Amino acid sequence: MKNDVSILRVLQSALLQVARFVLRPAPKAGVALVLALALFTGADAQELPRPETFTLSNGMQVVVITDRRAPVVTHMVWYRVGSADEARGHSGIAHFFEHLMFKGTREIPPGEYSRIVARNGGDDNAFTSWDYTAYHVRIARDRLELIMRMEADRMRNLRYTDETFLSERDVIVEERRQRIDNSPGAVLGERMRAMLWPHHPYGTPIIGWLHEIQSLDRASAQAFYETWYAPNNAILVIAGDITAEELRPLAQRYYGRLRPTRDLPERTWVSDPPNVGPMRVTHRDEKVRQPSLSRIYRAISYGTDEGRQAHALDVAIDILGGGETSRLYRALVEDQRIAVSAGAGANTSGLGGGSVSVYATPAEGVTLEQVEAAVDAVIAAYLRDGPTDAELARSKSSLAAAAVYSRDSQESLANMYGASLAQGESIDDIVNWGNDIQAVTRDEAITMARQTLDINASVTGWLLPPEEAQ
Amino acid sequence: MKNDVSILRVLQSALLQVARFVLRPAPKAGVALVLALALFTGADAQELPRPETFTLSNGMQVVVITDRRAPVVTHMVWYRVGSADEARGHSGIAHFFEHLMFKGTREIPPGEYSRIVARNGGDDNAFTSWDYTAYHVRIARDRLELIMRMEADRMRNLRYTDETFLSERDVIVEERRQRIDNSPGAVLGERMRAMLWPHHPYGTPIIGWLHEIQSLDRASAQAFYETWYAPNNAILVIAGDITAEELRPLAQRYYGRLRPTRDLPERTWVSDPPNVGPMRVTHRDEKVRQPSLSRIYRAISYGTDEGRQAHALDVAIDILGGGETSRLYRALVEDQRIAVSAGAGANTSGLGGGSVSVYATPAEGVTLEQVEAAVDAVIAAYLRDGPTDAELARSKSSLAAAAVYSRDSQESLANMYGASLAQGESIDDIVNWGNDIQAVTRDEAITMARQTLDINASVTGWLLPPEEAQ
Repeated sequence: MKNDVSILRVLQSALLQVARFVLRPAPKAGVALVLALALFTGADAQELPRPETFTLSNGMQVVVITDRRAPVVTHMVWYRVGSADEARGHSGIAHFFEHLMFKGTREIPPGEYSRIVARNGGDDNAFTSWDYTAYHVRIARDRLELIMRMEADRMRNLRYTDETFLSERDVIVEERRQRIDNSPGAVLGERMRAMLWPHHPYGTPIIGWLHEIQSLDRASAQAFYETWYAPNNAILVIAGDITAEELRPLAQRYYGRLRPTRDLPERTWVSDPPNVGPMRVTHRDEKVRQPSLSRIYRAISYGTDEGRQAHALDVAIDILGGGETSRLYRALVEDQRIAVSAGAGANTSGLGGGSVSVYATPAEGVTLEQVEAAVDAVIAAYLRDGPTDAELARSKSSLAAAAVYSRDSQESLANMYGASLAQGESIDDIVNWGNDIQAVTRDEAITMARQTLDINASVTGWLLPPEEAQ
Repeated sequence: MKNDVSILRVLQSALLQVARFVLRPAPKAGVALVLALALFTGADAQELPRPETFTLSNGMQVVVITDRRAPVVTHMVWYRVGSADEARGHSGIAHFFEHLMFKGTREIPPGEYSRIVARNGGDDNAFTSWDYTAYHVRIARDRLELIMRMEADRMRNLRYTDETFLSERDVIVEERRQRIDNSPGAVLGERMRAMLWPHHPYGTPIIGWLHEIQSLDRASAQAFYETWYAPNNAILVIAGDITAEELRPLAQRYYGRLRPTRDLPERTWVSDPPNVGPMRVTHRDEKVRQPSLSRIYRAISYGTDEGRQAHALDVAIDILGGGETSRLYRALVEDQRIAVSAGAGANTSGLGGGSVSVYATPAEGVTLEQVEAAVDAVIAAYLRDGPTDAELARSKSSLAAAAVYSRDSQESLANMYGASLAQGESIDDIVNWGNDIQAVTRDEAITMARQTLDINASVTGWLLPPEEAQ
């Protein structure tokens, strides 16, 4: 996806990160962006390295991906809690904790966590999705224990004052203003999601609705933390210069003594009523320089599918809209020259379901009506005829190769395991992903495309400047 | 509103009634339909009779409207709980209780309540809205105590078996199928509401989403009942051949001994994020014989407004779309002859906000695009020029007269007091409603029209037959 993917990002954005850190590629969809130098070496090499796993007595799951190439480790803690687990009216609290986790414990003063990591030559990161919240550190192997001690400490012993709580709330309000409310595309994308998921928590923005962020209170925040931030709700993923045997005593020492949450709640989310027909929304804002069309469709995901459905959908949508060889790009940008960008992407990683996004930015003098008609024509032809064998082979190889590339990035690999496990997949699912992609048949791909690209289960968004300015 | 108001009803339908009873007019908006024979006798007569009120020691509010014309009473119990108070994922439970309340107590066997009322020459009714649940009986004055005893009994002592619970759930599923799922207009209206209120509980249908009704369980139903069905959450409205002095000992005897709910929860509902722009949805179904256009706008209500805003909105929307003298009807049906019906209505009674609905049914050979353009033109002219003095005077008189007419219907009057009190208004608000309507100025009306008829805070729905059939 080398096109302008900003709209796509907004629609799919399944991650919200602490703003001070660099955006890193999301797992799976993201690995395509990790352009490592590895050669694509055929089907056998498509399996990912199988990590070692064990579980501590308090229920904490541990995943170890040994990588001896450098004396470095990636340490990640993934909590099986995200914004989709928030109570009604308390949107934003999961992401709020991504911030509060840096606000200190009895051992570590507020703000010191990242400074200590940096002073020790590491860097850290954190992010929140609908499905999980994750804390990452990359650091020299000989500093691993330091990180484990600090990370275990803040899992259960966070301490912050009322003042800190309120001032961090202001920080998040400002973050929301900058990321969402000042970005017409983000505002539109947020509403499109709310329309596509009228009831399911995926319709609520990860960062939370502004008025609800503003009224988040410390008592319910604390209850959220004490319930969900617990070893029996966490996955420790360590990639790097260490084996499970070496890690086990450390994991036991730092994480093993943490108290689990008794009666950890089941993660049950409400689901949506059936779709009734095509939905549309138009957003106009003076900050819009370039009109654009976007559409999201309801879809299955690796968390909800059966068999190879999500694999088939990933392949089908890659053919339709992934990159400059895709149908949408070639038709709208190259052949018809009515769009300056066009594409599609499948967001199939959600624990509770997925979506497919389609977008196009019209060329000068072309209306959104015209671009939308052209998009619809490409989709109609695709659903009628299905992919060619060449398209199918190219997309499968390209997706499978992306997984293989990720083997060269310790962090990408760890990310993929952590996110996929937190989203309900098994180690086998992850190891075999590349092979399963290669196994997708033409029939499977076209079946999933037809099932998913149903205008009756979609929201189409138009982003435009104010009416006068047209 | 003598036009085809079926779409309007679906969009506004703030009531869901036990199916076996006749649909009676909703309060306030409904009183216009109560065409009593009373003469409109000028401004002074626009005040409604002021009821006597008192409160029992357990917190139950009592309202008595003495009406000596016949030896008959209307006995109503209004609970300050409705579908908007349901927990996330448990939609339909409020309406479920409207059914379960007829399923017996230790004293009254299942199904006997209505039979006893009927054997005593009365009739009963029950309904559920987002804001309240109400139980009505109309009966001879000398049978009042019988009703009070039975109604007090079932407020706290409902008894039903698991089997009854499950079989009644099936009844409600079937009710939903008939009322909503078999009615394309209802399906469309339900989704339009979900889009207009993406977060606020008014976006959830009163009857509940089908899949959630199907999974309602007895334990959470029972908790709902025990919390909300309590004297300190109820209003007793009695209209008829009785005074407060006569009623008080009876009320004390039957209702006064009921245990209140301790720590009755506050009715706090989540609210919606700002609107981002016009939303649209199209629903096609083979059962659609006649395409139609409908639109809903967010609005204030008597429960959320300040000063005379809701009064002004009622007047403004009546001028736009109330009946055959309205702008929409005259323009689309009479002058342009492009629609067979057209109108608008304000639903201003909600405790948590209101809406305005606009609808039109195109004439043979006219498209929905054409009808929508005509509707938009009428609205644009109205917002530009405002109402004429004659329109203003006529609408105010017609609305105020409707309130006066209701004085002749014991039940309408009781209905109006009960519903309005349950929706947060005061006795004074109700008594003075007609005068306040008469006081609405041209500026107030046009201000509210402009504030409300904002396409950016609206959902437009198209109802059509399947594409092939066009």
